[in-house]
Amino acid sequence: MAGGRHAYRALFADLYELTMVQGYLEEGLSGEAVFTVFVRRLPESRNFLLACGLDAVLGYLERLRFTDEDVAYLRSLGRFSHRLFDWLRDFRFEGSVYALPEGTPVFANEPILEVVAPLPQAQLVETAVMNQIHVHTVMASKGVRCVIAARERTVIDFGARRTHGVDASLDAAHAFHIAGIHGTSNVLAGKIYGLPLAGTMAHSYVQAHDDEREAFRAFARMFPGTTLLVDTYDTLTGVQRVIELAGERGGDFQIGAIRLDSGDLGTLAREARGLLDAAGLKEIRIFASSDLDEYGIAALVKADAPIDGFGVGTAMGVSSDAPFLDIVYKLSEYAGEGRMKVSRSKSVLPGRKQVFRLEEHGRATGDVIGRFGEALDGRQLLRLVMRQGRRTSDGESDLDAARRRAAEELARLPSRVTSLERAEPPYQVSISTALEQFTAAVHKRVVGG
Amino acid sequence: MAGGRHAYRALFADLYELTMVQGYLEEGLSGEAVFTVFVRRLPESRNFLLACGLDAVLGYLERLRFTDEDVAYLRSLGRFSHRLFDWLRDFRFEGSVYALPEGTPVFANEPILEVVAPLPQAQLVETAVMNQIHVHTVMASKGVRCVIAARERTVIDFGARRTHGVDASLDAAHAFHIAGIHGTSNVLAGKIYGLPLAGTMAHSYVQAHDDEREAFRAFARMFPGTTLLVDTYDTLTGVQRVIELAGERGGDFQIGAIRLDSGDLGTLAREARGLLDAAGLKEIRIFASSDLDEYGIAALVKADAPIDGFGVGTAMGVSSDAPFLDIVYKLSEYAGEGRMKVSRSKSVLPGRKQVFRLEEHGRATGDVIGRFGEALDGRQLLRLVMRQGRRTSDGESDLDAARRRAAEELARLPSRVTSLERAEPPYQVSISTALEQFTAAVHKRVVGG
Repeated sequence: MAGGRHAYRALFADLYELTMVQGYLEEGLSGEAVFTVFVRRLPESRNFLLACGLDAVLGYLERLRFTDEDVAYLRSLGRFSHRLFDWLRDFRFEGSVYALPEGTPVFANEPILEVVAPLPQAQLVETAVMNQIHVHTVMASKGVRCVIAARERTVIDFGARRTHGVDASLDAAHAFHIAGIHGTSNVLAGKIYGLPLAGTMAHSYVQAHDDEREAFRAFARMFPGTTLLVDTYDTLTGVQRVIELAGERGGDFQIGAIRLDSGDLGTLAREARGLLDAAGLKEIRIFASSDLDEYGIAALVKADAPIDGFGVGTAMGVSSDAPFLDIVYKLSEYAGEGRMKVSRSKSVLPGRKQVFRLEEHGRATGDVIGRFGEALDGRQLLRLVMRQGRRTSDGESDLDAARRRAAEELARLPSRVTSLERAEPPYQVSISTALEQFTAAVHKRVVGG
Repeated sequence: MAGGRHAYRALFADLYELTMVQGYLEEGLSGEAVFTVFVRRLPESRNFLLACGLDAVLGYLERLRFTDEDVAYLRSLGRFSHRLFDWLRDFRFEGSVYALPEGTPVFANEPILEVVAPLPQAQLVETAVMNQIHVHTVMASKGVRCVIAARERTVIDFGARRTHGVDASLDAAHAFHIAGIHGTSNVLAGKIYGLPLAGTMAHSYVQAHDDEREAFRAFARMFPGTTLLVDTYDTLTGVQRVIELAGERGGDFQIGAIRLDSGDLGTLAREARGLLDAAGLKEIRIFASSDLDEYGIAALVKADAPIDGFGVGTAMGVSSDAPFLDIVYKLSEYAGEGRMKVSRSKSVLPGRKQVFRLEEHGRATGDVIGRFGEALDGRQLLRLVMRQGRRTSDGESDLDAARRRAAEELARLPSRVTSLERAEPPYQVSISTALEQFTAAVHKRVVGG
């Protein structure tokens, strides 16, 4: 599905990818390259990230084709040669991909994904691979914090109106589902990914009626069991109207929940709960929204506010406190030799790598980044998900499996790491002796030091 | 074009839009509604926003159709009736839109756009209209700050790898062009919007060669006049290699620029400029990138760093300091009567409105938000851009006209407003007496106060 959405976008690439590909073709540099995707530093407010976006990447790689129109556009730029055009016309991605399964917690410097392919192929796909891993991982890593904050209460994605475009809303809804979010207001995401949908009324519905009571009565008649938004004029007056209607109309007025969307949500929820309970309407739940993020949810949960579910919009939909990651796609091996950029503060671990997660009594104690093929203790996290351009069984798309995996993997992390506060000490990630030695050797060769 | 990209996305809507539409249809609430799009508060770091996204909105409204597959999906939800399905199958947007032309500076509470249409139609389009105005305005408002910071120097969009998905990269490139950005690395955006493209090589190109000198020589041979990235190993050594190659190979080694991508850009640029000038290579320009934003650019410009152009990636591509706006789409009139939500701190100016920009000697002195049709001093900013579902001449797509408009409108703002620092005093926006009186009257009617 994700691949289908992205199929028409072969030209989604930075221009320099094409310039370099042409260079490689002209120079005959078509040996095997390894590119590693990783995040150099975690944002201040993240103890871990939830790796996501793999299904979108594999869908893109499987379907990447250049149309005649694409090639004609490139020709019109007057920068490229026939060698590039011919190569693009025949293009099929034939490489391998090793990756963390979607929903795996990941830390700074750990490979999220490694592409192993002829250099021009691996270079060409840089922009799209990074973009997709980035947006999905940003969103999943924010969404999971809201799920953690809500404990067992429901969290719904209300972000569609303020995500960065339509794709972002779909990528986000997909990532949020993996992160454990319970549903979305986004109908298109519901259709594409089979997600549970939620949503009933906005203030405009109430305002379009001459009075609130009339609006509530009409809506409840059409949608038994619905959620009524009670704060268009005055929240507690709105709650009183619900109670009055329930009293007057009995079984003809079935309401599942009320929604609060402004004011002091904790206080209003308590007052509303009191009014509803006193009227014998204990089964009516309370749903809250209004500029919520994980901290707002956590504060309400800590205060034991009688709120059954949260709608989270903008803060989650743009990952407002950490809208980007310092993610990179770096050449780490070419033609059998480790490669690295060594300019200040931006170095790279060379060669193919593996992440080993050490666990004791079912709890992760730390990770080791090692060389691929090393025999070290710990669970090996990177898997072969694509071979010669085709998904392996580990690369098959399974959204619900990813969601279960995320929940299981999170349960194995130390609680300080899954808390909203900064983990002290941070989760430990070390480099294996073999990888350290290899890095030193490559560094020496590259800089001649 | 933008509409074409978005055509298949009729179901991009929050579920409650459809629920409410069904309600309106069942209840016969099909009178004329006015919805107003505005931003309640500007982000801390913005003195103004650059209104954008109108072309995408109009393209969406023109093309919005529901397929049988869309309707079948909605039927599968088991929430809706035939009345809704029949209405969706026949759906054509038949309303009017009044809007600020793309590229108009706008302030808090000022209408960016007003939709005037039968209530169900105007409600249906809420999510998509907001999403598109939001993402384009977020991006343009960030991009223009980078342009301002760079004074007359070149600024290129390098954001594609870290925007929130592919759409966001396209929406951003479109908005950046209006904001005055000079080009993009995003090939797909270049194709769709006819934007100038930029980009030559990444570190991986250099690393794939056995040494940097060989990489430079090969690339310059293939792409005369290109830009060489000099910091893969050591920046000044890289510059020396460029100089040596120019000396050895003379006219066979034509370089347009070097790019610095790490370290202290100001110091390195000065040192590189010194080396190049001493070697008689005054015509080679210096281009800089690496975690730049408007503040980084401004500091380099202020220090008079010899940098001719800047590549700006993530900070601009996600608008990192202000990734969202407090934008809303609020019912302000229905069936000829002003409407407003009055819940705490979230009120709305009722009725149709106009923005009047007051100017003296070609400089804006303040805006007045008035009632539509009021005869007030000042330039009227909202224009009729769509009538009965068709674009008027003011609604025609013209990206370059929008770019020129933005430059002209910005030149008319007081310099404190277009500075990067917080404007003191802020730009003045007042409410006309007639609108104040109308607001009070509607408030009284609505709350019965």
